[in-house]
Formats: sequence, structure tokens, C-alpha cells
Amino acid sequence: MKQSKLFLNTLRENPADADVASHRLMLRAGLMRQLTAGVYTFLPLGYRVLSKIEAIVRQEMDNAGAQEVLLPAMQPAELWQQSGRWEDYGAELIRFQDRHDRTMVLGPTHEEVITSLVQNEVQSYRQLPVTLYQIQTKFRDEPRPRAGLLRGREFRMKDAYSFDLDEAGLDASYQAMYDAYCRIFDRLGVEYRAVEADSGAIGGEAGNHEFMVLSEAGEDTIAGCSHCSYAANVEKAVGQALPQADASQTPAREKVATPGTKTIEDLVRVLGVSASQIIKVVVYLADGKPVAACLRGDHEVNEVKLKKVLGAKDLTMASAEEVLRETGKPVGFVGPDCGLKVVFDRDILSIADGVAASNEAGYHDIHVVPNRDFPVPETADIRMAAAGDLCVKCGQPLRLFRGIEVGHVFKLGTKYSKAFGATYTDESGAERTIIMGCYGLGTSRVIPAVIEQCHDENGIIWPIAIAPYHVHIVPVNIKDEQQVKAAESLYHRLHAAGVEVLLDDRDERPGVKFKDADLIGLPVRVTIGSKIAEGNVELKIRRTGEVQVLTVEQAFETILGIVK
Amino acid sequence: MKQSKLFLNTLRENPADADVASHRLMLRAGLMRQLTAGVYTFLPLGYRVLSKIEAIVRQEMDNAGAQEVLLPAMQPAELWQQSGRWEDYGAELIRFQDRHDRTMVLGPTHEEVITSLVQNEVQSYRQLPVTLYQIQTKFRDEPRPRAGLLRGREFRMKDAYSFDLDEAGLDASYQAMYDAYCRIFDRLGVEYRAVEADSGAIGGEAGNHEFMVLSEAGEDTIAGCSHCSYAANVEKAVGQALPQADASQTPAREKVATPGTKTIEDLVRVLGVSASQIIKVVVYLADGKPVAACLRGDHEVNEVKLKKVLGAKDLTMASAEEVLRETGKPVGFVGPDCGLKVVFDRDILSIADGVAASNEAGYHDIHVVPNRDFPVPETADIRMAAAGDLCVKCGQPLRLFRGIEVGHVFKLGTKYSKAFGATYTDESGAERTIIMGCYGLGTSRVIPAVIEQCHDENGIIWPIAIAPYHVHIVPVNIKDEQQVKAAESLYHRLHAAGVEVLLDDRDERPGVKFKDADLIGLPVRVTIGSKIAEGNVELKIRRTGEVQVLTVEQAFETILGIVK
Repeated sequence: MKQSKLFLNTLRENPADADVASHRLMLRAGLMRQLTAGVYTFLPLGYRVLSKIEAIVRQEMDNAGAQEVLLPAMQPAELWQQSGRWEDYGAELIRFQDRHDRTMVLGPTHEEVITSLVQNEVQSYRQLPVTLYQIQTKFRDEPRPRAGLLRGREFRMKDAYSFDLDEAGLDASYQAMYDAYCRIFDRLGVEYRAVEADSGAIGGEAGNHEFMVLSEAGEDTIAGCSHCSYAANVEKAVGQALPQADASQTPAREKVATPGTKTIEDLVRVLGVSASQIIKVVVYLADGKPVAACLRGDHEVNEVKLKKVLGAKDLTMASAEEVLRETGKPVGFVGPDCGLKVVFDRDILSIADGVAASNEAGYHDIHVVPNRDFPVPETADIRMAAAGDLCVKCGQPLRLFRGIEVGHVFKLGTKYSKAFGATYTDESGAERTIIMGCYGLGTSRVIPAVIEQCHDENGIIWPIAIAPYHVHIVPVNIKDEQQVKAAESLYHRLHAAGVEVLLDDRDERPGVKFKDADLIGLPVRVTIGSKIAEGNVELKIRRTGEVQVLTVEQAFETILGIVK
Repeated sequence: MKQSKLFLNTLRENPADADVASHRLMLRAGLMRQLTAGVYTFLPLGYRVLSKIEAIVRQEMDNAGAQEVLLPAMQPAELWQQSGRWEDYGAELIRFQDRHDRTMVLGPTHEEVITSLVQNEVQSYRQLPVTLYQIQTKFRDEPRPRAGLLRGREFRMKDAYSFDLDEAGLDASYQAMYDAYCRIFDRLGVEYRAVEADSGAIGGEAGNHEFMVLSEAGEDTIAGCSHCSYAANVEKAVGQALPQADASQTPAREKVATPGTKTIEDLVRVLGVSASQIIKVVVYLADGKPVAACLRGDHEVNEVKLKKVLGAKDLTMASAEEVLRETGKPVGFVGPDCGLKVVFDRDILSIADGVAASNEAGYHDIHVVPNRDFPVPETADIRMAAAGDLCVKCGQPLRLFRGIEVGHVFKLGTKYSKAFGATYTDESGAERTIIMGCYGLGTSRVIPAVIEQCHDENGIIWPIAIAPYHVHIVPVNIKDEQQVKAAESLYHRLHAAGVEVLLDDRDERPGVKFKDADLIGLPVRVTIGSKIAEGNVELKIRRTGEVQVLTVEQAFETILGIVK
């Protein structure tokens, strides 16, 4: 492609309202433009990247034995009423009336449509297992679209659905998709982790993984082992229990005045203790009833875990007024023996010489020992995993990462097949419910996720598998006939050899061309300048910045080696 | 692909409500299923066909220098208000409120979005010309969805838009798209005509062609030359004027009683004349004022042409009451000298010895000669072209066809660029309006259009370029180990050679397998039966029914020859 013909405007300035690197770079490098909040047009460069990602996804889905279909975006409301998601999905589900006043929705996902399809088409065990997938535009009316393609209202997604005879079949279908996802992200050339995710109300153990591209711009926090493959969403992550403390030398409990201390930090400062010595109490309302969570001051309550331990449907932290009403004490001065029901975190027992509130405004007790100075009848894991916790699988320390969720594989079980009566007749003639899994991958979200990992202060650094073109040929001066001739000749030779080349044939200053080349970020740049008089060109690797002076022939061979 | 694994149910019976062959066959061959009126799911076989069509379209767009983008389906209402189509599009435009109560539409087409994009991105003449295209799902709330994919509410479409400096540039962009369309339909292997279409309010001469796949199931009538390439929508088609008659021997006008004659057929029967001798008068209201159209009894008024001749905005045929009110005569007895303004068709002068109403109920005049017995001050072409009219280009007779519109290329001019202020600065620094063209191609509609041409009573007959698979291997008895072994071996060899093969490994009776194979309609069927004992198989060409008995090796080579 000749750059003078390419529909491309790069932007010199950072666009307003784009505070995430990938969002800025996608606008500046002319990959996309916003039409309205959370809705983007893919321009030619951006569309090339998207289609390469989708081609990789398609290949790996096909290799895994999944069959491609295309389900409608327009769906009758009745399907969503049947599954119960008509209410559950809330305002994210886009709804409209058709000309005959039937209510329709725009598909944010396709469990309803595909389950009703399979219910009609599948009668016998002979027709199973089957995994169907599609790559399609989805609609989700996000309350706060942000960060460009990271959270939009119209986006591209691959979604697959597996249909199996039994749990063992689901396990196999799930594993095939899990493996395909690993191959996809390996091929995309990004650093990612498959993370155990909380399965919420549905799904069993080990039946719910999120695929996270590691990035500080991510909305999710992951605890991952520094040594083995263990990784889990921080809401789900578990470390080893800390060793119980030896408190045999701890002096007796003693009350001290701590007026005005409101936070853990205040106590650390006033008493000269470490946060890990503080016995923290947080008051909640679980289904409206007060309950206290007790854990170390350097740990955070994991509300998902606490909710499960309590078997509560609803859990909210008590306000200052509610704390006072339920305990009679002001916030910050409620101790573990406050009279409420208390759930103890298991690591509370790692405190040898602790500090606890005295249940009296302005006072704390020091030299407090759990199970000596107050009873700890039982404990549970109710906290967030923290950096340095030891991995449950291999004992090495966990680290905390932030990640961008780009894929999700999920054992659905029978939630939808039951709602739609999707059954099959087994070999004995009995009717059984089909077991389902679902597997999403945000193909358009992969673009910013990759850019978050692959950029520097000058622009994007494309992995070769999804670069819009492989090579950027930049003749420095297009009024120099020798440079232009050499550039065109190399362009045609590479093109004929199957290499995708962008030729910057614009009449621009070299500085402008180099800045644009770095911004667009093709893996290899060939600069053709005055050295061409001796038959030489400069080959620059965008990722490393490495520059080699080569003959045209050497450059040609080097590029073929990089691309193939 | 092994058929036992393929997500495919063929149907023995014709589905209710499917009265068009392609609709029936697409359902029966398991290419698609209806979700709701005019909205379909593409199943694996159907999706393979669609993606092959779209791949051909994409290649030819790229070859023509168009650049692929992807524009949003969700569009702000403001864009449509700006272009004026917010009202014009009526109930076909799907509208909805987003969660912040902004009104959005679902794109039925993308002139608004792309013109506003180009308005933002293009400043200089150096950035033009450019042609952008996308392949995408479109939404149009048809009042009466019908015939499966022939007229649906959600469908797939390629739409391209060209942006040029001037009319000459538009001519070149238009021609490039026209030629690309010809290559696309040639490659698809269907009989089609590029048909001059009426351009309605917009577009000049030769700036509006419909690409029609010829088929009786089509909604459009085309007049096409039997000899040269001339073809036009019947609303636009022009034949040569008929020779003027020599009336020198015609007797004098004579009044005869014709009581109860209401139609041309009645007159033909009662008077023993031919329809071509009858001088027909049809009364219209043009912008509310009465006007008569006068033409031969065997010709039909072309209201599009008549409207243009009159320069009228609105044209409706007068009711019987209106005829009586405006002329004082009952319908059927209004003559060419009725006192109203009369527009004469040019071929009225071909009548040597005519019959005209006497302007008196129950009477006609015979031996009437135009321009002798009533004045014909001027004539115009105001009729539909008819079979047998002579081609204006080559003089050979025209034929009438029915066709399915699958593509449309159109010179838009400045309609949208003016509405959105899409201008560029020319070399002299002056601001000029960009000139646009638009080019649609219904990729999903191509499927039924092809099937209408390519089927017989047993099923579909796929052209090889878009067949879901090239070859169907059918072992007659999968309990016969030799047959199965030979089938699998041929399957793997063909697959390795790049041939797409469907292997019917189902344990079904031969009759069922053959019926399904004919229905699905892959170009080549290899039947492996008892003759395999002598090393032979049967190769059947679906289109011709031709059957050859070949060795496995010969079959392999023959198939490679057909596919490559």
C-alpha cells in the first residue's frame, strides 16, 4: 500500500479525554475514530488489525472442532423473558419496538438464541457433542463507556457455546476451548494469564477462567504465582494460611488512650506498631442483620468470600450511624469482643502481640492475643489475597497484577438448557438435559490490550502477527530519483514475496515520516536515504530500536526471515 | 468435515410459508433457520457459503483499490436529521433510546456516518480520491419480509462509498466499481445483467445501474437486448420508436355502437381488431390536475416517464368518479379529443387504421388515423418497453426478464457532502464540495439469488466458487470396512490437496444419503459402494447428472482438475 493513497490521518497532539495510552495511540495512529460515546469506526489500519485477530481466532476455533455460525443481532424480547435475563440485564440491554410494536433487543450475547436453536435442532444423543461459534458485533449499553475500545457500547466478539451429553463431555469441551484460547494468545504475542474467576451464582469449581492480558490499565486485579501457573482474580484468589503465632511471651493485655485515631494508619503512627499487629473489625449488614468481620490491619475484607461464608444474598458495609446503632460504639473503636456475631479471618491467628479496640471511644488495648484475650471459635478465609502470600500450589510468593479481561470460558451447566427445554434422548430412550458451556473473546478489545503492553513514548510496537503491515519503507526524499526507484523496487519485491508493505511515498520532511512510522509502529522499518548511492539501506526493528545498515539484498532476506 | 459431526438437519418436507424455491431449499438443506420474521440464523453450511461470497467481494474491492473499514451499526439520530433522511426513511429505520435517552438508529446504510467521517478527515485535494467499503450486518424494518433472505430485516451487505474531486473523478471511481461488480458476478457463476435504473430525484444519466441476477422469483422486470449488452429496468428502458404508419388508404372515420365494452380485450373481441390498433386514453391527476395519456392498446403507460414529461411531483391514475367528473364521460369511452390536456406516446403514430372512443358512452369510432382525425401536436416516450421492441443500441429485439437486485452502483453527486459540509481545498486554495458515489451489494441476498438459478427438483446445484464444500464422499454402507477405508483415505488425500470435502460417515440407508447429497448440492459426489472391491468408485457431477465409474486414482485426479 502506498501511504499517499491510504485513508490515514495521524494526529500530532494527544486527543482530549483519552487518558489511557492505548486509547490515545489508537486515535493518534489513525486506527479508529469515535462516532458517539463508546461507539467507534475502524479505519483501514485498525480494520486490518481487527481482521488479523479475528482470522487467528477463527483458525483456532476451527482447529478445536468448533463450527462457525452467524446468529442475529435482532432478537425477540420473549427469548430474554424466557431465560429471566429480561430483568437481570437491566439498562445494558438495548431494547426497541419494531414497526409492528413487537419488542426486540440487540444481542449483547447469544445464550438465548443459540439455546433455542439447539432445542429445535437436537433430538438425539447422536447429534452431540457440538460446539458452535460466531464472530460478531455486539451491543451493550454501558453506563460509562471508557478508554476507547476497552469498554464500548458496540464491540466485536467471538462467542462460542458447547453442548454436551454430560459433565465429562463438558469438561472435555471446556478444556478444548481453554487450550484454543492459550494458542490464540500465544500467537497474538502478548503476556497473559488464565485466571480462576469467581463463578458467582453459577458454575462449579475450575469451570470459570478469565483470560487476562497483563496491564496497569486493566480494571481487574489478579493474584498470580511468581513461579507456577496459578493465577486467580483477586476476588477468588487464595494463598496459604499464615503460620499461627507463638504468643507465649506476650505481656498481659493493657488499655491505652488513643484519642482521635480513626484509621489503621493513625494507630500505626500513635502506637508505633505495624499494621499487621492490628486486629481490625469491620461491621457489615448481611441481609439487613449486623455482623462483624475481624482480620489483620494489613489485610482487606474480600466481600465475595465473606458473603459465601455467611450464605448471605446481600452484603453492605455498615455506615457510621449503623455501626453506632448496632454496637453502641463509634467507628474505629469496635473490638473483636463487641457482642456482634463475628467472622474471623484465619490469619488473625498469626498475630502474636496485637492491638484491638477497647469497645470504648478513645481507647485501644495493646498486647492482645487472639484466642487468649477473646475467643476465636472458628476461622475462615475472608480476605483478599495480598502480594507475598504463598501460592497454594507451589508455596512460592504470589504477586498482584492488573489485567484486561479479553476472554472468559465458563461452564454454564443447565441454566439455559433448562429454561429453553433443550434436551436430548439418550441411548436408553430417556430424555436428558443438555449441558452447556460458553466461551467469549473480545476481538476488538484485544487491540487496546495488546497496545497497552506493546508501546513506548513514540507510539505502538505491533507484534508481527497482528501488525497492519509488516514493513514500512521510508524513502527519505521522494525528489531523489534513486531513493524512489530503490524504494519502489523493494516494495514490489517484498509484496510479490507475500510481505505486507506500507510505502511512505509522501512528500513530507524526514522528521514527519519517522515520527509517523514510530507512531504507527510496524515491526520493521527500511529507511532509504543517501546511503543508497552505495547500495545500502537502514533496517530498524521497532521493538528493540536496533538499526542495521544492509545492502538492499540483505535487507530483503532479513525481512523474509522475520516475517516467515 | 465428517457429516456425523456437522451441525446439520436436512428437512424431508417443504416448510410451510416458504413459497419461493430458494427459501424452501435454504431451510431444507439446513443453511439457515428463522429466528423471527425476516431475521435468520446462518447455520454452518450457510455460513460457509456467505463467507465465500464475502471473500470474493472483498478481493475484488481490494483489487479495485477500495479500502476496508467498519462503521458502527449504532448511529446518533442527529446524523439522520442532518441529511433529511430521519423523516424520509420512515418506519424502515429502526430507532431506539439509549440509557441516557439519546435517540439512536440502527444503520440500514451508512451515507451519513461515512460522509461525516470524511468531512472530519479530509481537508486537502491531496487526500482524494478515496473509496472506502465495509462488509456488515444491516437493519431495515421491512413492512413485509418475504422469501427468506430475499427480503429480510437483518441482512449482510457490502457498501462502498467513493469521494472524488470532480465529476471526471466520480466517473472513474464509478467505472472501477462497475467493473469490480462484473468480476464478482462472473466469479460467482451466475447469469446477471447490469441494468440501467431510474435514478429518481438524484443522479445523472448512466450513473445508476442495478446488478440483477436473472430469475422468475425476482421482484423487478428488466428489458434487455437479446443481442448486445443493453438492459434497463423496465421503468427506465427505451426501445426504438416504431415506424410511422402509412394511412393513405385508410377509409374515413365511422362511429359504431360498442355497448358494454369496458376493456381493450372487449373491444378486440367485439370489433375484431388487434389491440395494437386501439387508441387508448388513460386519465391521470398530475399534482391534482387532470391530464390524459394516449397510447396504443397493446402498450402500458410508464408512470415514471410520464411524470418526468409532465414535470409533476405526484401522479395518480384517476378513479372512475374522477374520470366522469373531469371529462363528463364514463371510463372506457374517453377519446383522444376529449378536451383534456393529452400527452401522446410517440408510437401512437404507428397506427394506420385505429379505433378510438367517441367521447360518448356505448360508441367507438373505427378507421381513426392520428394526426388526421385528431391533432397530435407532439409526442414523447411515455410507455413501458415491451418484448419485441428494437434495441436503441443495436436494433435487435428486446426481451423481458425478471431479476433479483443484488447490487446497485449509484452516482450520488453532492447530496450528502453538501448536507455534511464535506469539502476540500483545491490546488488554488479554493474550497470545493466533494463528489460522492455509493455502491451496495447484498452479500446475503446473493445466496438465494444464486439458488434460484441453480437448483432442480432434487435440491441445490452450487457453483463451485461458493459451494459450502467441493466434494461429497458417500460410502454406501459404513458397516463395510473396505468402503469406509477407501472413503477415509480419499477424504484425507483430497483434504491434504486443499479440496474441501464432506464425508457422509452416517449410518443411514443409501437412499437417505443420496437424497441429502442432492439436496445439499455439492458440485461433485463420489459414491463408494460395492464396486470398490474392484477398486472403482462412481463420480457424479451434480449440475449435469453425468456419472463416471473411475478408479480411486482417476477420481482423485478428476476432482483436482475440477476444483483448481
